[in-house]
Amino acid sequence: MVRYVGVDNMIRLVETLGVEPFLVGLADYIEADFRRWTAFEKVSRIASHSRDGVIELMPASDGALYTFKYVNGHPKNIRSGLQTVTAFGVLSDVATGYPTLLSEMTITTALRTAATSALAARYLARPDAASMAIIGLGAQSEFQALAFKALLGIRDLRVFDIDPAATAKFRGNLAGYGFSIASAASAEEAVLGADIITTVTADKLNATILTDNMVGAGVHINAVGGDCPGKTELHPDILLRADVFVEFPEQTRIEGEIQQMAPDFPVTELWRVITGEAPGRHAPEQITLFDSVGFATEDFSALRYVSDRVAGTDFFDEIDLVAEPDDPRDLFGLIARHPGTAPMMSAAGAR
Amino acid sequence: MVRYVGVDNMIRLVETLGVEPFLVGLADYIEADFRRWTAFEKVSRIASHSRDGVIELMPASDGALYTFKYVNGHPKNIRSGLQTVTAFGVLSDVATGYPTLLSEMTITTALRTAATSALAARYLARPDAASMAIIGLGAQSEFQALAFKALLGIRDLRVFDIDPAATAKFRGNLAGYGFSIASAASAEEAVLGADIITTVTADKLNATILTDNMVGAGVHINAVGGDCPGKTELHPDILLRADVFVEFPEQTRIEGEIQQMAPDFPVTELWRVITGEAPGRHAPEQITLFDSVGFATEDFSALRYVSDRVAGTDFFDEIDLVAEPDDPRDLFGLIARHPGTAPMMSAAGAR
Repeated sequence: MVRYVGVDNMIRLVETLGVEPFLVGLADYIEADFRRWTAFEKVSRIASHSRDGVIELMPASDGALYTFKYVNGHPKNIRSGLQTVTAFGVLSDVATGYPTLLSEMTITTALRTAATSALAARYLARPDAASMAIIGLGAQSEFQALAFKALLGIRDLRVFDIDPAATAKFRGNLAGYGFSIASAASAEEAVLGADIITTVTADKLNATILTDNMVGAGVHINAVGGDCPGKTELHPDILLRADVFVEFPEQTRIEGEIQQMAPDFPVTELWRVITGEAPGRHAPEQITLFDSVGFATEDFSALRYVSDRVAGTDFFDEIDLVAEPDDPRDLFGLIARHPGTAPMMSAAGAR
Repeated sequence: MVRYVGVDNMIRLVETLGVEPFLVGLADYIEADFRRWTAFEKVSRIASHSRDGVIELMPASDGALYTFKYVNGHPKNIRSGLQTVTAFGVLSDVATGYPTLLSEMTITTALRTAATSALAARYLARPDAASMAIIGLGAQSEFQALAFKALLGIRDLRVFDIDPAATAKFRGNLAGYGFSIASAASAEEAVLGADIITTVTADKLNATILTDNMVGAGVHINAVGGDCPGKTELHPDILLRADVFVEFPEQTRIEGEIQQMAPDFPVTELWRVITGEAPGRHAPEQITLFDSVGFATEDFSALRYVSDRVAGTDFFDEIDLVAEPDDPRDLFGLIARHPGTAPMMSAAGAR
């Protein structure tokens, strides 16, 4: 049997652990896997593009465990009451090829994206960073806020969304979490004086959420929203002034903010900063930019985390996803031996 | 909610329809999709190789539906009572990116592989073919036998396996299905005079199940067992005498019998034969060879077939694989609004 963590069980798991402790624990797993980056088999995600969106498969393996995530991105979904992004994933045993865990990953992806952003910022933002602007208050925004609070202690938020209802939703969801939230009338106003700028808009193609004049010295930019070909949030001039950090360059050059730049535009891999091989922030006035697109190893870490967290709990069901014949060479026997079936039934040919 | 067809429900579905009618219906779907081959987005499967096996993802899309299959191949599994091949798959709506069906595919893959073999043989074997040799009586063998009976009326079988227990299993499982089964003492004896030769051995690397002298004029060879790099069943001289038909050349040249040949070794795509664009069998003495490796469009057809067959039945469960917030921008609200949770719980920080 395969363990199945559906949406209801994932909600119970997150609530039982607490969102912030969940994010801290998840970030630990992500960081541990970034530290052993070279142990992973890594490929860019396999995308199937259509008029209205994209469906992607994101496999990763460390030689002992294999994972993949299925994730879609359909900006138009929101108009019909559906989510832009849904996801699920599977954890498997490399030695046997058998899947051992199937999990929802819509909620998990939101958590792992936020945990990765905050993890990167812990290496890249100024140590004294105390305030964060968030531009775009959609499905990912509260998770980003809580991850930066849980990992960096950021409580001072300046937020903006073109839709006032999104701002109200954000405020309502985070009431009681101990934030000081200032609603700005514009993106310009939101970023003014912020130590960290998180851009996480959803449904714009090659938008310019941040222009060069909005970005002051010493800022860390957490660019989350631009994550597929033709979808960016930053004016290219910002990239020229910043030191840019990425997950997997091969993928980010296609999907990230740096898709606007030349193929040899210099970037630093985040794992090299985490292992100490490459410098992260080296000066207070430096502008750092995490060009987040989301990489398969983060989903590997997330599935590993979920698997460990549900072990010994009742936060999963068991499902019969894999056939288990008594004799592995006798798959057909599952049908023939099933109670109540005589082989002649098949020969009758009724359809 | 997503429809889930687990192993138990798949067994019930196959038994209710009957194995042979199921195979005939499935072959119709596979044939229909081969007919509109150019409508598909096609990629070779994405393989993750390890010491003991391989895990593969096989996506396909026709622009309206998207499917992928997860499948492993671990020959050593059999020694520890596990199956060489297990699989599951998902059917999604391209317009929204939402998955709509999750299905076991261990049994389904066995059925679709057999249905595809018989479908190919309907175009490639001599019209008067009445007998088939089967070399290798593992998990796939009964399905092959029943598909050739259901689609071509083949009832005369000559079978061989190096393990007498496999032969006994095969005979036992097919008792009552109306076959005449001769057990041969060797592969040579089995193929003698057979109109169709099916090779479906499992755990040999670059074995030579068939040598050139074993293959007479007019035979159709259904080469199923060789299906990954380093795994073949036929002596290359056979390929030089035969007209070779394949599913997706880019994949077959890596995985099929033709991996032994030059990159420009001539092959004919099966879909071209089915649409009438290319000749199949044109003479009684011609040797035809279907170099089967299994392609993603066949799994697409299988998932489409299963989806249609379970509609209106109770042969599926509904599972909460996709989060469904009331407001799609309010994913976080699923956690915050869940009964019994106060936001401050998270802030407490217990872990």
